[in-house]
Amino acid sequence: MKIKPECATCIVRQVVDAVKEISREEEVQFKLIRSTLSCIKEVYGPDAVPAWMGTEVHRYLKKISNNEDPYKRLKDRANKLAMGYLKNIEGELKKYNYKSPLERLKYKVKLAIAGNVIDFGPYSTDVDIDRKLKETLEGELKIDHSREFLQDLKHYDRILYLCDNAGEILFDKILIEELKKYCEVVASVKGGPILNDATLEDARYVGLDKVVKVITTGCDAIGVNLEEASQEFLKEFERADIIVAKGMGNFESLTEYSIDKPVYYIFKAKCPPVAQFVEVNVGDNILLRSPNP
Amino acid sequence: MKIKPECATCIVRQVVDAVKEISREEEVQFKLIRSTLSCIKEVYGPDAVPAWMGTEVHRYLKKISNNEDPYKRLKDRANKLAMGYLKNIEGELKKYNYKSPLERLKYKVKLAIAGNVIDFGPYSTDVDIDRKLKETLEGELKIDHSREFLQDLKHYDRILYLCDNAGEILFDKILIEELKKYCEVVASVKGGPILNDATLEDARYVGLDKVVKVITTGCDAIGVNLEEASQEFLKEFERADIIVAKGMGNFESLTEYSIDKPVYYIFKAKCPPVAQFVEVNVGDNILLRSPNP
Repeated sequence: MKIKPECATCIVRQVVDAVKEISREEEVQFKLIRSTLSCIKEVYGPDAVPAWMGTEVHRYLKKISNNEDPYKRLKDRANKLAMGYLKNIEGELKKYNYKSPLERLKYKVKLAIAGNVIDFGPYSTDVDIDRKLKETLEGELKIDHSREFLQDLKHYDRILYLCDNAGEILFDKILIEELKKYCEVVASVKGGPILNDATLEDARYVGLDKVVKVITTGCDAIGVNLEEASQEFLKEFERADIIVAKGMGNFESLTEYSIDKPVYYIFKAKCPPVAQFVEVNVGDNILLRSPNP
Repeated sequence: MKIKPECATCIVRQVVDAVKEISREEEVQFKLIRSTLSCIKEVYGPDAVPAWMGTEVHRYLKKISNNEDPYKRLKDRANKLAMGYLKNIEGELKKYNYKSPLERLKYKVKLAIAGNVIDFGPYSTDVDIDRKLKETLEGELKIDHSREFLQDLKHYDRILYLCDNAGEILFDKILIEELKKYCEVVASVKGGPILNDATLEDARYVGLDKVVKVITTGCDAIGVNLEEASQEFLKEFERADIIVAKGMGNFESLTEYSIDKPVYYIFKAKCPPVAQFVEVNVGDNILLRSPNP
């Protein structure tokens, strides 16, 4: 999908957030933001893809600030918070062992979305996490292709699961363990730090590598960029029967390609441009099969 | 006061909002936003004053879009909504005729802030307006120099009241009528369209010109810019014993000057940079005397 005019606001907000992680000195912050405005101007336009525009801008910011990983602190924090929170849902999780495969799958898809919804940022508290988790788990999937998903899981053999952010990757792990009951799963994370996207380090921290083979995209592009991806990634992308794409970045970028196999997009529509593209409301939770069943 | 690094987000958001008023065509919107990013880059920096940075950016946008008044529709709507809403508070207003001068003054100051709080935008409803008005009127003034204000009103003769936005100018009129019980009041509006700031047209629409002499700043600067102001404005600014400055734009800009008379700032601290500058929380309502009593 392409950006909308209002995406200008969001990318500038991201830059401000990142710059605040990079330096506490306002003078430095002003300089970095000012310089990045030129970069935004260059990549902003009706043909820009949100995830790729973000990639260019965050790469530029990493370069001019000599900071390879501005979100390091936030990612570490997200991982720790998610791990600490896990025990709170273990009881609930176990209950689902005795429910139907469809109910269990749907619950774990929602859990993976909840991981994407939770703000693991510096001001989040256990109460907030609890509330948001509950809202997502008890709410409906506005687009719900879970029946088709279960059918495809039974019919096919191999899944490539594209992870999204640090922290939430722990919740992805729980869904991936469920998917493994049906298929061989390979998970992929980013090949280098970008935004708060999960890298190998985060995958190892939550123990995802103990559960499935974890590869990287081979680059630090937000979402997927097949032109920049490593041979290893392209091979797994080719071999997989089903692609599971988590989060908005993967959705924004994969929808730019025509893919000859089922892709399951799992995300919360967090902003108007994405929500309008999928024809849902902002805040809706989505398990969308492409091609549409 | 000067801008903070995060003001980049807010000015871009304003540009996006304005551009959506200027054209419905996305291609035009992209072009205008993209071009305005250069202008923002030029005026953005640690020495920028929020209101004046906004002035440069909105002037640039008016120029490149050949649209002299992008907020015309929103201002007209705000005026109409405010006028339509007036009857709902007339009963409450009358009650205050029998209360003490201090209570009455404070109530009308809060009403003027409420006018600044209400979102008269396209999605506001009577219910929202009711709720926000009630919240402001029943809440406290976080900085409350109403006693000093009453004292100064009794002691001095002449007020220059700097208005802020269309719509809310009707609520300013109610406060101005109260101030007239003590002093001669001159009200000023902007000399040309900028943002949703009130101009002569708005003052006339709500009948402010029937109540006091209304002048303009002589220019389309957000807030006050004494270097650009007309002789008429400067004369009234000089003659006044008290300046009453409504809204954040007037606060942001007037604090750049040293003024040898009491200034009363009346506003809601709507964003972190302004709130931090005044040492209050975002959302707090302020009646601040400068110099501090």
